[in-house]
Amino acid sequence: MKAEIARARVPRDTTNDYTYQMAAERRAFVKEKTGVDLTHVAEFSFDPAILPGNIENFIGVAQVPIGLAGPLHIRGEHAQGDFYIPLATTEGTLVASYNRGMRLLTECGGVKTTIVEHSMQRAPVFICADAAEAREFGRWVGEQFDEIKAQAEGTTSTGKLISIGQYQVGPLRYLRFNYTTGDAAGQNMTGKATFAACEWIERTFPGNVRYILSGGMDTDKKHSHINMLLTRGKRVVAEAVLRKELLKSLMGVDTRDLFFMRQVHQCGAFLAGSSNNGAHAANGLAALFIATGQDAANVSESHAGINYSQLLDNGDYYWSVTLPALIVATYGGGTGLATQRQCLEMLGCYGRGKANRFAEICAATVLAGEISLAAAVLHGDWVSSHERLGRNRP
Amino acid sequence: MKAEIARARVPRDTTNDYTYQMAAERRAFVKEKTGVDLTHVAEFSFDPAILPGNIENFIGVAQVPIGLAGPLHIRGEHAQGDFYIPLATTEGTLVASYNRGMRLLTECGGVKTTIVEHSMQRAPVFICADAAEAREFGRWVGEQFDEIKAQAEGTTSTGKLISIGQYQVGPLRYLRFNYTTGDAAGQNMTGKATFAACEWIERTFPGNVRYILSGGMDTDKKHSHINMLLTRGKRVVAEAVLRKELLKSLMGVDTRDLFFMRQVHQCGAFLAGSSNNGAHAANGLAALFIATGQDAANVSESHAGINYSQLLDNGDYYWSVTLPALIVATYGGGTGLATQRQCLEMLGCYGRGKANRFAEICAATVLAGEISLAAAVLHGDWVSSHERLGRNRP
Amino acid sequence: MKAEIARARVPRDTTNDYTYQMAAERRAFVKEKTGVDLTHVAEFSFDPAILPGNIENFIGVAQVPIGLAGPLHIRGEHAQGDFYIPLATTEGTLVASYNRGMRLLTECGGVKTTIVEHSMQRAPVFICADAAEAREFGRWVGEQFDEIKAQAEGTTSTGKLISIGQYQVGPLRYLRFNYTTGDAAGQNMTGKATFAACEWIERTFPGNVRYILSGGMDTDKKHSHINMLLTRGKRVVAEAVLRKELLKSLMGVDTRDLFFMRQVHQCGAFLAGSSNNGAHAANGLAALFIATGQDAANVSESHAGINYSQLLDNGDYYWSVTLPALIVATYGGGTGLATQRQCLEMLGCYGRGKANRFAEICAATVLAGEISLAAAVLHGDWVSSHERLGRNRP
Amino acid sequence: MKAEIARARVPRDTTNDYTYQMAAERRAFVKEKTGVDLTHVAEFSFDPAILPGNIENFIGVAQVPIGLAGPLHIRGEHAQGDFYIPLATTEGTLVASYNRGMRLLTECGGVKTTIVEHSMQRAPVFICADAAEAREFGRWVGEQFDEIKAQAEGTTSTGKLISIGQYQVGPLRYLRFNYTTGDAAGQNMTGKATFAACEWIERTFPGNVRYILSGGMDTDKKHSHINMLLTRGKRVVAEAVLRKELLKSLMGVDTRDLFFMRQVHQCGAFLAGSSNNGAHAANGLAALFIATGQDAANVSESHAGINYSQLLDNGDYYWSVTLPALIVATYGGGTGLATQRQCLEMLGCYGRGKANRFAEICAATVLAGEISLAAAVLHGDWVSSHERLGRNRP
Repeated sequence: MKAEIARARVPRDTTNDYTYQMAAERRAFVKEKTGVDLTHVAEFSFDPAILPGNIENFIGVAQVPIGLAGPLHIRGEHAQGDFYIPLATTEGTLVASYNRGMRLLTECGGVKTTIVEHSMQRAPVFICADAAEAREFGRWVGEQFDEIKAQAEGTTSTGKLISIGQYQVGPLRYLRFNYTTGDAAGQNMTGKATFAACEWIERTFPGNVRYILSGGMDTDKKHSHINMLLTRGKRVVAEAVLRKELLKSLMGVDTRDLFFMRQVHQCGAFLAGSSNNGAHAANGLAALFIATGQDAANVSESHAGINYSQLLDNGDYYWSVTLPALIVATYGGGTGLATQRQCLEMLGCYGRGKANRFAEICAATVLAGEISLAAAVLHGDWVSSHERLGRNRP
Repeated sequence: MKAEIARARVPRDTTNDYTYQMAAERRAFVKEKTGVDLTHVAEFSFDPAILPGNIENFIGVAQVPIGLAGPLHIRGEHAQGDFYIPLATTEGTLVASYNRGMRLLTECGGVKTTIVEHSMQRAPVFICADAAEAREFGRWVGEQFDEIKAQAEGTTSTGKLISIGQYQVGPLRYLRFNYTTGDAAGQNMTGKATFAACEWIERTFPGNVRYILSGGMDTDKKHSHINMLLTRGKRVVAEAVLRKELLKSLMGVDTRDLFFMRQVHQCGAFLAGSSNNGAHAANGLAALFIATGQDAANVSESHAGINYSQLLDNGDYYWSVTLPALIVATYGGGTGLATQRQCLEMLGCYGRGKANRFAEICAATVLAGEISLAAAVLHGDWVSSHERLGRNRP
Repeated sequence: MKAEIARARVPRDTTNDYTYQMAAERRAFVKEKTGVDLTHVAEFSFDPAILPGNIENFIGVAQVPIGLAGPLHIRGEHAQGDFYIPLATTEGTLVASYNRGMRLLTECGGVKTTIVEHSMQRAPVFICADAAEAREFGRWVGEQFDEIKAQAEGTTSTGKLISIGQYQVGPLRYLRFNYTTGDAAGQNMTGKATFAACEWIERTFPGNVRYILSGGMDTDKKHSHINMLLTRGKRVVAEAVLRKELLKSLMGVDTRDLFFMRQVHQCGAFLAGSSNNGAHAANGLAALFIATGQDAANVSESHAGINYSQLLDNGDYYWSVTLPALIVATYGGGTGLATQRQCLEMLGCYGRGKANRFAEICAATVLAGEISLAAAVLHGDWVSSHERLGRNRP
Repeated sequence: MKAEIARARVPRDTTNDYTYQMAAERRAFVKEKTGVDLTHVAEFSFDPAILPGNIENFIGVAQVPIGLAGPLHIRGEHAQGDFYIPLATTEGTLVASYNRGMRLLTECGGVKTTIVEHSMQRAPVFICADAAEAREFGRWVGEQFDEIKAQAEGTTSTGKLISIGQYQVGPLRYLRFNYTTGDAAGQNMTGKATFAACEWIERTFPGNVRYILSGGMDTDKKHSHINMLLTRGKRVVAEAVLRKELLKSLMGVDTRDLFFMRQVHQCGAFLAGSSNNGAHAANGLAALFIATGQDAANVSESHAGINYSQLLDNGDYYWSVTLPALIVATYGGGTGLATQRQCLEMLGCYGRGKANRFAEICAATVLAGEISLAAAVLHGDWVSSHERLGRNRP
């Protein structure tokens, strides 16, 4: 009997489940099952009626504290000017640390940001009778690109199929459909479009072929080397030149020490098989993502990064961060919810035509965090050890 | 002039910044700078006085919708019984999909969960004069383990230093300090302890050596292969046997097709250089992390996973998910905040002695999501194509 | 004094160094310096005059034993029939083991082989002023493809430039020139062609750009993930269906156990971060490469592999091996030397128009080795433990 | 009929197959089957009677040309003095290029070499009923280490079991047995020892467990990330300081340009997912391996490398190469064959007690090749473009 009760299903109203009433009923259900009164979870400032497409079995909200960092001066192609960045996190010092990096960057003249590529994927796999048929299938797909594109784009007003990567293993032909997706992140859009394309392919290909809509190559919601190489979402670069004197006066660190540390970190990252040869891109991205209604699960892909830097002849320090798989949206998904929209608006990033701007802000934010943490590690070490971190000596 | 104004610093009260007043002032500042009135962000149900250690420059909250999934029956060592899982997300279908997987798992007898390893790291690098000295340094560190342990543990009541991994590149000796950290995630605790140990090492080692507290090997806030191999946080396994009939009746999918798909996915993941040979661990983890006050940036490490499965002789399907780098806490960080604590409490996971239980719930949740999505991909394909996904034919 | 003597340079005749005389002088020099009389090294059966382009400072030869394996029945597109394979190795059991695998494969009807892709690379990097210029540079390169192709192909009668991959990090634009190279491995040909192309690009691009002919992305003489994905040399598949009864009678192993082992190996390879989820492709390839005058250093790239298999409904076992980066030649390099040429000839693979045939033989050989070793591991274990390796039980 | 004939088996004499006679019979068989007269292959200078344990179905030899490079001055712990290096290759310029690097290194004072770790592996996998049992099994194995060590070492006079790494996935417990193996490479020795240990474990463990002697984690004959981290064979470092003036006068290259190039290469290697952030370690290793009777298939593991360098204050350039998985032997395998032994002898590396010395020579040789190629790439570029490669400018 107890098991029966315990397994009572979560209450749902199949006619309209997005109501204050149903949220309250489910909270009551939780209280009955677990004894916990979700008083704080119940405190939200919007009508549940806005939630279809964002959540099921709604019971209330997580209230995640937002801290304000900035100003961060950005000289991008889409983001230009001084920005105040909302960071939703529960990790102390995160906002302070990013804020410190933003100050340095801003005083050094700001961050240059550039989006160098954009492409969102679905990667179905086609299963053929053998490797030779798979190769022929692949050739056929290449020849039919225009028709496949038409089929895929027939399902979406925004998504554009730009190319299809092909990767064969034995009799399996993995196709990686690459789309531009406007201001949406595009996972659903590309899923639907690719499904239409695959159905057409399966129907039309003059041979036997079966497919699975995802063959594990996408790689959706997970880091992968293919993302590093071939981009997922946006490939964005943030660059800045740190003035030697400003780095010293604001953070107590010498640019040469910073460059020395970079050598050591590059080695460490290569040795560890890391997704990022920097320090903590995930921190800034997760905080920005939660504040602005991005899909926080995409931190798994988006946190990948490649830092490249040079010590300049005048002692200044050039630092670039490349994010190869930044997945962001300013339209659709969680971007229209109450607090999320306000946070996007304060960045001038809500709605259509804003995703590039927002991507640039993300990359600039990441760079601020990298600088601040690197300097902190160096400075702490340096002070406590009463000697400068040696440099230029192996 | 305009630049001056634009760059006005964010208001702070250096005596007490964690007040309604200061939050309001900063929102007013945002309004002045950006024109955006953060009305929803302002709606939170707790006193900002609780926030020190969680956020700086607090302005309000992100309200992230929580959906309720479950019941999920877990037969773990720490988590036992039926659980209702709070998932904070803005991605439609996520809760429904996990919920569906939980139902199947529960009807199949539940999920077995096991924590097989626990270890949190800091990885300083010691810079020596050459490779031979670095090797000698490493030998010395090995001999001094007891003393180093004493130094490290002198800074914490919870953290225990269990081993020090050593990895050499040229004259660099990377040390990976492995700790158990009780119910905290432990990044700060291990940072402090390792700092104390490093200071002692630098002081005591009878030779010249310098160090940087992080050499990029940790690998904190990023996926890495070292995490896959050697664990970061908790290494947790969730296992279940899916009954052939139940999988068919609830999800319309045959276990043999599921197993076929697994072969294809394993290939795809290997080919892509993926952090996870499953589908979307990051989805469930990010949603659980946000709901319960985990550090959402740790999705970058925690989403790594290895799926291993077998088609049993009776047609049932054994599926295991191993999360090698699950970083969770039930104490400290964001776990004590208003909504976060309530969500932990509804899982019976708030406070000391609960981290293992929570880790098991996370792993079981991930497994539910994997099953549901795999079945959805298969079934969609199957129905639409009016033929069963071929199996056992290459 | 001693140091002076010790450092006497190796004797060379700048007018004609490829003579019996100079080889003998250098051996005398070795004897003087080391006391070792290179009597066996001196025993070679060809005139040193054939060696320019293959070696410098020639002193004699390594005599590497060759064993004969086969027949191996291949049903490829270029290789058809029964082949006897010369394997040069000093590792006992290697020839016997491959031979055993070949017998099984041949009795099962042979190996189907398919070349699914071909492309050899040079990957220069262009260094731009910033990320935006690098992106523009990349766009320009894309537009100039026809002219770049003309420049590159002007240096070679065989190489054809088929595409240029572009990968950006900060201000760096890595270009991966993909060529077909006929029957040569093509590293030199593509180097020369790419150099010509780069010079033209640097001269013609209306902006400032500098380049390095290799930016570390090629990736020449080393394994890399980009090779796994995008092919280097030839991407070749070998497939076979192992008959359940034959596997049992010839190797004492059940196909179900083999499939079980494959699951475990796939997991192990994924966990280890391996270049190959099979066992020992490098063994067969190194032995074939040495026998036939291939560049043995290319074992580093060529040994990568992806095994994909299925247990068929009738209990037979489908096994495919995909080699994504097989680098072979039948023309140029060491292929024309005395023993090397004879070994190519006995495969019908010497000279122009034979590289595809040889690549198929390589892949079929690898598959034979995989099967034999897997069966040996299983059978040894099985016998000694007096119980069948369990299968289908997790 | 034709098929019957074609598939005639290779002639073997089951009483004594290692004779001139049998080699000749098999060559006659090849001639009959393929029409090719293996006249050169037939030219070898040793008695086939020495070959058991090295080859089966012996037909003759591959004559691989050997070139002489050096002197290379090494200041190692085991290798000290000037060495002349035999390189067996068919790739023109390889010997010349290594020779050039050796000259520079020698004039700069030589190469410091250090072996920092040694460990050869077998990695069986134990299959348990579930994850909890696998964990308990692992704990038991840890407790039984002394007895397991005794069992393993009972099979070998040389091998010593130093540790057992444990890696769990679901119900699978991968054990990585780490041995020191004296002067043998040790793959067979460790296989035999681990087999004995596994048999004892399976027999003794108070629970049900089955095993496979190799679970794909070793990772034998293939590159893997676990090798990079945890060493396979010897982890050897070669270090040198290149004098600014000497680099300029001998190779025409500035140390600053070399350091700039290193930054770019590190990025490229990280981006490509490469096994080596240097250029072509495989070249020197393959050539040395073939000349000295190493297992050439181990180039797959041994070619992995990590370059770490610094530009010193005085403009000199510190360069280190770390080979994490160098597998070499001076005893057993092919080391005792005719030409192979002579080549080892000229390095003072034949027989017991010499493997460390040989490993140091390998690493120093690799460093010479890296320097020479890097300089060639830079210089070629530089001359042809009539401008110095920019440095210190992003």
